[in-house]
Amino acid sequence: MLKIRLVLVGIEGKINMGFIVRLAENFGVEDICVVSPEFSIDDPEVREFAAGGAKALSRVRVEDSLSNCLSGASLSICTTAKTSGEDVLRISVPSDMVKYILPESGIVALVFGRESVGLTREELSKCDVVSTIDTGTEYPTMNLSHAVGIYLYEVARADHRRLTIGDYCPRNVMDAMYREINSFCADLADERACIALKRALARARPSKSECGALYKLFKKVRHRLSECSQIMFVDD
Amino acid sequence: MLKIRLVLVGIEGKINMGFIVRLAENFGVEDICVVSPEFSIDDPEVREFAAGGAKALSRVRVEDSLSNCLSGASLSICTTAKTSGEDVLRISVPSDMVKYILPESGIVALVFGRESVGLTREELSKCDVVSTIDTGTEYPTMNLSHAVGIYLYEVARADHRRLTIGDYCPRNVMDAMYREINSFCADLADERACIALKRALARARPSKSECGALYKLFKKVRHRLSECSQIMFVDD
Repeated sequence: MLKIRLVLVGIEGKINMGFIVRLAENFGVEDICVVSPEFSIDDPEVREFAAGGAKALSRVRVEDSLSNCLSGASLSICTTAKTSGEDVLRISVPSDMVKYILPESGIVALVFGRESVGLTREELSKCDVVSTIDTGTEYPTMNLSHAVGIYLYEVARADHRRLTIGDYCPRNVMDAMYREINSFCADLADERACIALKRALARARPSKSECGALYKLFKKVRHRLSECSQIMFVDD
Repeated sequence: MLKIRLVLVGIEGKINMGFIVRLAENFGVEDICVVSPEFSIDDPEVREFAAGGAKALSRVRVEDSLSNCLSGASLSICTTAKTSGEDVLRISVPSDMVKYILPESGIVALVFGRESVGLTREELSKCDVVSTIDTGTEYPTMNLSHAVGIYLYEVARADHRRLTIGDYCPRNVMDAMYREINSFCADLADERACIALKRALARARPSKSECGALYKLFKKVRHRLSECSQIMFVDD
């Protein structure tokens, strides 16, 4: 299993520190190593902005060199907003490709520099890889905590790719729903619409609760329509 | 070309507002609509945290209703940290799948609620689709600005990976289809199923040809059902 270590070098802002601790809690990252911060990690402002993550502040490790924070990591990734195709020290993996280069287990260190000047060349040279968030604009310099949020989103949840809808619609309910649709579409003599409806619903990947509601709806529609044609038949 | 509109409902924090304006500048989003903010958008603290995006503050639009901010959008996406597999109003598309349901052109509205309580059920019901960031942890509630950052990262720089379905369903046909659904659901007294159906269809991103067929189908259903209830009424 892969573990994430967040490494913050020379962090200057207490609000950012608080936000980052909250983000780490959001994404289940327990290992935070801070190199020479410009304030006390226990500052009340840090705690305030850490919100539900404040209890994790006691776990934050403070070191006086980047090397100490990188110790034991299988892969270290330094982040920068200043990328370059020329400067070999700054040739970057885009943030959305990082997940494809992660080891399966061990520790990956995500390293973030100072709000004002980022990481020095010497610090960049200590990492295995450099990475950048390509915003596609003229103003790619994000606030530190927002860059951290995006990397945690990309890296920490690499194995959480699923619909957040609870249980999927079971096959038998899906089939029962299709039968109702087929039946009332036949009634309405519109097979093409019937295919469109089934295709669209299948693409939507309905949840169990949704397809329960949909099954009942289509059953009711089918029932009423057939009742209706009987009545109309009797009337003729 | 697809344009992003950022919609912030009842935003409470000036620091967040500043950060969000900066993020919008980072990701090249020029359209920001704020519904009843709890402070003045021109506040110096907002400006401070907007950093390099501060010049965009004059473009921020302030409205007194969500509907005004949604006007003209081809697709509206309400975000929530509170997802549910049971509640059809909260069945969510995960943030990393949103890019696959985007229209090719027009305006997509990304809607974010209050820091304290998010969006109300009434506000959620005004959106086509609901989306959530699945952090995979017990503490998914992110700070507002970090959630905005992740959605802009996912949506604003989407390299247009799309379903190969040709033209998407135009907004007016989608709306006409919804009206038919609303009408026959009212007839069948099943509002929950109606929400489930509309949500599932919006998630499926129907093509122009599909939604033409679906519109006609639902219109026929509605027509027959209303005919039928008149006949049954006459019979009584």
